[in-house]
Amino acid sequence: MQPSRLPRGRVPPHLTGYDAPINDITQEVLKNLEHIGVDVLIPIGGDDTLSYAKRLHDEGVNVVAIPKTMDNDVYGTDYCIGFSTCVTRTIELTHRLRTSAGSHERFLVIEVFGRYAGFTALLPTMAGAADRCVIPEHPLDAERLADLLTHDRNRNPSRYSVVLVSEGARLASQDDMVFESDETDMYGHRKLGGIGDRIGTALKELSSKYNHGRRIDVVNQRLGYLVRSGDPDALDSIVPMAFGNLALDLIVRKEYGRLVSIHRGFYDSVPLTSVTSEKKIVDVAKYYNTDRLRPIYHFDGAPLFIMTSD
Amino acid sequence: MQPSRLPRGRVPPHLTGYDAPINDITQEVLKNLEHIGVDVLIPIGGDDTLSYAKRLHDEGVNVVAIPKTMDNDVYGTDYCIGFSTCVTRTIELTHRLRTSAGSHERFLVIEVFGRYAGFTALLPTMAGAADRCVIPEHPLDAERLADLLTHDRNRNPSRYSVVLVSEGARLASQDDMVFESDETDMYGHRKLGGIGDRIGTALKELSSKYNHGRRIDVVNQRLGYLVRSGDPDALDSIVPMAFGNLALDLIVRKEYGRLVSIHRGFYDSVPLTSVTSEKKIVDVAKYYNTDRLRPIYHFDGAPLFIMTSD
Amino acid sequence: MQPSRLPRGRVPPHLTGYDAPINDITQEVLKNLEHIGVDVLIPIGGDDTLSYAKRLHDEGVNVVAIPKTMDNDVYGTDYCIGFSTCVTRTIELTHRLRTSAGSHERFLVIEVFGRYAGFTALLPTMAGAADRCVIPEHPLDAERLADLLTHDRNRNPSRYSVVLVSEGARLASQDDMVFESDETDMYGHRKLGGIGDRIGTALKELSSKYNHGRRIDVVNQRLGYLVRSGDPDALDSIVPMAFGNLALDLIVRKEYGRLVSIHRGFYDSVPLTSVTSEKKIVDVAKYYNTDRLRPIYHFDGAPLFIMTSD
Amino acid sequence: MQPSRLPRGRVPPHLTGYDAPINDITQEVLKNLEHIGVDVLIPIGGDDTLSYAKRLHDEGVNVVAIPKTMDNDVYGTDYCIGFSTCVTRTIELTHRLRTSAGSHERFLVIEVFGRYAGFTALLPTMAGAADRCVIPEHPLDAERLADLLTHDRNRNPSRYSVVLVSEGARLASQDDMVFESDETDMYGHRKLGGIGDRIGTALKELSSKYNHGRRIDVVNQRLGYLVRSGDPDALDSIVPMAFGNLALDLIVRKEYGRLVSIHRGFYDSVPLTSVTSEKKIVDVAKYYNTDRLRPIYHFDGAPLFIMTSD
Repeated sequence: MQPSRLPRGRVPPHLTGYDAPINDITQEVLKNLEHIGVDVLIPIGGDDTLSYAKRLHDEGVNVVAIPKTMDNDVYGTDYCIGFSTCVTRTIELTHRLRTSAGSHERFLVIEVFGRYAGFTALLPTMAGAADRCVIPEHPLDAERLADLLTHDRNRNPSRYSVVLVSEGARLASQDDMVFESDETDMYGHRKLGGIGDRIGTALKELSSKYNHGRRIDVVNQRLGYLVRSGDPDALDSIVPMAFGNLALDLIVRKEYGRLVSIHRGFYDSVPLTSVTSEKKIVDVAKYYNTDRLRPIYHFDGAPLFIMTSD
Repeated sequence: MQPSRLPRGRVPPHLTGYDAPINDITQEVLKNLEHIGVDVLIPIGGDDTLSYAKRLHDEGVNVVAIPKTMDNDVYGTDYCIGFSTCVTRTIELTHRLRTSAGSHERFLVIEVFGRYAGFTALLPTMAGAADRCVIPEHPLDAERLADLLTHDRNRNPSRYSVVLVSEGARLASQDDMVFESDETDMYGHRKLGGIGDRIGTALKELSSKYNHGRRIDVVNQRLGYLVRSGDPDALDSIVPMAFGNLALDLIVRKEYGRLVSIHRGFYDSVPLTSVTSEKKIVDVAKYYNTDRLRPIYHFDGAPLFIMTSD
Repeated sequence: MQPSRLPRGRVPPHLTGYDAPINDITQEVLKNLEHIGVDVLIPIGGDDTLSYAKRLHDEGVNVVAIPKTMDNDVYGTDYCIGFSTCVTRTIELTHRLRTSAGSHERFLVIEVFGRYAGFTALLPTMAGAADRCVIPEHPLDAERLADLLTHDRNRNPSRYSVVLVSEGARLASQDDMVFESDETDMYGHRKLGGIGDRIGTALKELSSKYNHGRRIDVVNQRLGYLVRSGDPDALDSIVPMAFGNLALDLIVRKEYGRLVSIHRGFYDSVPLTSVTSEKKIVDVAKYYNTDRLRPIYHFDGAPLFIMTSD
Repeated sequence: MQPSRLPRGRVPPHLTGYDAPINDITQEVLKNLEHIGVDVLIPIGGDDTLSYAKRLHDEGVNVVAIPKTMDNDVYGTDYCIGFSTCVTRTIELTHRLRTSAGSHERFLVIEVFGRYAGFTALLPTMAGAADRCVIPEHPLDAERLADLLTHDRNRNPSRYSVVLVSEGARLASQDDMVFESDETDMYGHRKLGGIGDRIGTALKELSSKYNHGRRIDVVNQRLGYLVRSGDPDALDSIVPMAFGNLALDLIVRKEYGRLVSIHRGFYDSVPLTSVTSEKKIVDVAKYYNTDRLRPIYHFDGAPLFIMTSD
């Protein structure tokens, strides 16, 4: 939860004078940083962490930031620590679930994190983990998905098919995201969840229309935090070492207010302001086939870690 | 073993007239390809496979090639399928061995594949899997390594240190590679092996000099084929999908004699001739600290998958 | 779904004369077995599969059955194929989630399969994967769990604690199981789900009472089919080989109507009737500490695979 | 290295008066235990650790011991901590190597630890990890192995076959174990190694005799410490919890000089003297088929963890 937008109930009890419904306690943060004697702050995180990092930079704190979020949706860098391992793990866990889906001859509906950006559903699908994917950037026509997945299942000798669903995805006929409850996370976002289950239910109902009147059952699995658990892969072992060194290089040169980054395949850094300037999401026209509900398989001239480099 | 350099004993028995010590049976290969009716050949492999692919191209066969070798030493492409998983797995297996090394308070000497190029030892070391690495591109001063590893071990609260050794590495005082036997692999190279064991033995002997007269024991482990076993990671799931599509695009356009590739972070293709034009090895001046026997930690402007992009 | 209790909608369309709401199509099954020429049937499964196997045996089919269910709740055998791997995987996945729970300083609530028997929650807890467990055999006092878990969390330097919940568990104040929907699985059981989420919600609400007025957040994860995915462990590689051989031995000796089994640590077989004679569930008095909500740690004279041998 | 048989060079330098080639410094150990104020000692280990534990018990130290060795060769207990995970990991790593063996159409020769007892080679073979195994308890007729493995390979559609070799195995024509060097481990045993390589070499040479005159190549892999690395499986998570509790129960009751154990499938304890009374090795007549070079597949009345219960 950002110290600049703190609900009254979350203000630490020893602080007085913050009685508004939403409070900005940044002055207290600054006092503490000064008291501890922090010369340079190196915040590591995603959009929320980094946008508050920019706020502190604006307040005069020496900041060099490192992008780290498995969603890979920080504007200004092609890559954020954790994304590759998230893809590696999603592929691994999805493949593990195939035997269960196949022995029951069902649809396998797997929900992954990804609130605004569908990279974590699109990349594993491109890598062969799933037949189709549903991403936040394009509202889903559930009928179309039921049609495609039934077709995928029936031409698979083991009689199952797989769809990866981002937690932030939504049905075309639906007004807003599906909310598990009215609760919010520590940055004030309402907590998402359940779109995988809802799509699973829809598929079960719609499948009979495309399967000679017989309904197809569903295995639902939310991968949740499992995709950010376990050993980091090669890229997520090398990039943190590089980003850490780059941050120290910037500090040595007293170049503050910067975000270390990867730009078109090379290590670099950008002004921290880029973080808040724009959202980084999947370019649907370029990378998502809205008719086939899967990636566009066009690679000539594309970046190595496809679609993360724009 | 290349059909252009086949020892007499390896010539298939139904072929006659190949009685020289070394024989080129390429004409037989061409006849077979014609007989089967192969329109386009898509060879997938490393240096040896690809250089014979070029030979077939020179003979008029339509060839589009895909680079695949965990050594990542094919000239003309930044990346070969298998390299990232090899690094991922080397890191994973090396970390697994730490408890054994620590409980015995020893040096851990791990040998990995890599006949001519040290990428598979250098990258995991950069990623934190090892304290030091020994690569084919720079002959080893064993005294220096014993000194550094003893120092590493003694400042580690668990009293162990780790070195990664390429199979093609050599001691500075040694004239040629260490050969396990006089046998050759199917491309005619003599089989390597044993440098890890030899360095282990040297470290044990030399350690007492740097450790107050007390010898330090060694855990030796050759990872062998284990690093190319198991699930592929994210990159090695995405790149093959891209390379396969790129190859088909070239075939559709009838652009033969090409190698699909990654160049400076982007998918591309190059003439197949590039494969045989030069060796791709670690640029020691840029990437290997010959005094500290470890990578040079300089990242500004370097490629994402450090040192594979030159 | 058992062929002896088939809803009209599930009767294969080519069969006529089965128009009751629930139908027994066993005679069709027998005709088919005769038509195909099956001499001996070797069914492999859990309670439902095995009780229909007994039905076929009663009808005169030669049956030798093999127990396989990760729930390990088949009466007549200490062990069912899949249980050990389920425990191995639950421990592995639970440990993987610790870093996420710890970095957020939350309760980690993990739901595992187990409709009637709590073995799959109890054994991993005994093995150190969780602080507490909730099993179907003992209704949960949620206040007590909130109290214990808050205490566990606050004495953990990483500020988190873990509870494993069986899908068939229930709150003491709750009349019946929590049903995700009115749907039934292929054996006619209504589908379970959601108790993990409900306990998570309860914990969040109740925690402030035991934590100086401050609420503790929750990471919820349903492991689902992931615990029966991946490589089998040692026991689940050896036991299937043994069970298969034992089944063939029985067939050679024409001893039909039997279930291969493990009894008090040794391979054996029992009459197939034992399957339907009684339920195998956790003996709460002996193995579950209803005050501490965890296993009873008393081992003297207990079986190797604790509590599966009664 | 046992303090009762310490070479002069291994005597700690601050101790004087130990100038014999082999020294017993047990009196120093006893003085130190007394000085530190150790009331009860709980040694955990295999044959060597436990036999010195017995020595300390004989000297009057209060000892309760726990068996832990992946070789599972401690007399007096059916099970030692680490054995199951060793089997689990050996199966996993062996399966991982199949693709490499198959793509090269070779013999896969895998060497595992096991100096005197072949349990760690026999059990994975029984579980389906290998076609054949070679154990220390029965000298190998290499011709017979070459014959069987060639047959196994040629009826495998992927053209490979697998043999597991204990490090302590020996060729029938060979007088003594194969020693990598003259060095000894910390208990004074000479270090083993190389039998896997030697058998690999023998197989390559002999194979042509059984394969129409064509030699079959070999992939050699020593698993080494990798089989005792990584996550423990279910049994090795539960048993240590049980053994630890049993040890504390004994201490509470002041029953010293005992080894916690599993006997015929149940937790128990035995006098520590049993450790030194006899060797626990594979009962070849009962469990190893000396003609087929693989386990005897007879399970009726056998213990769950086959052959470890005698």
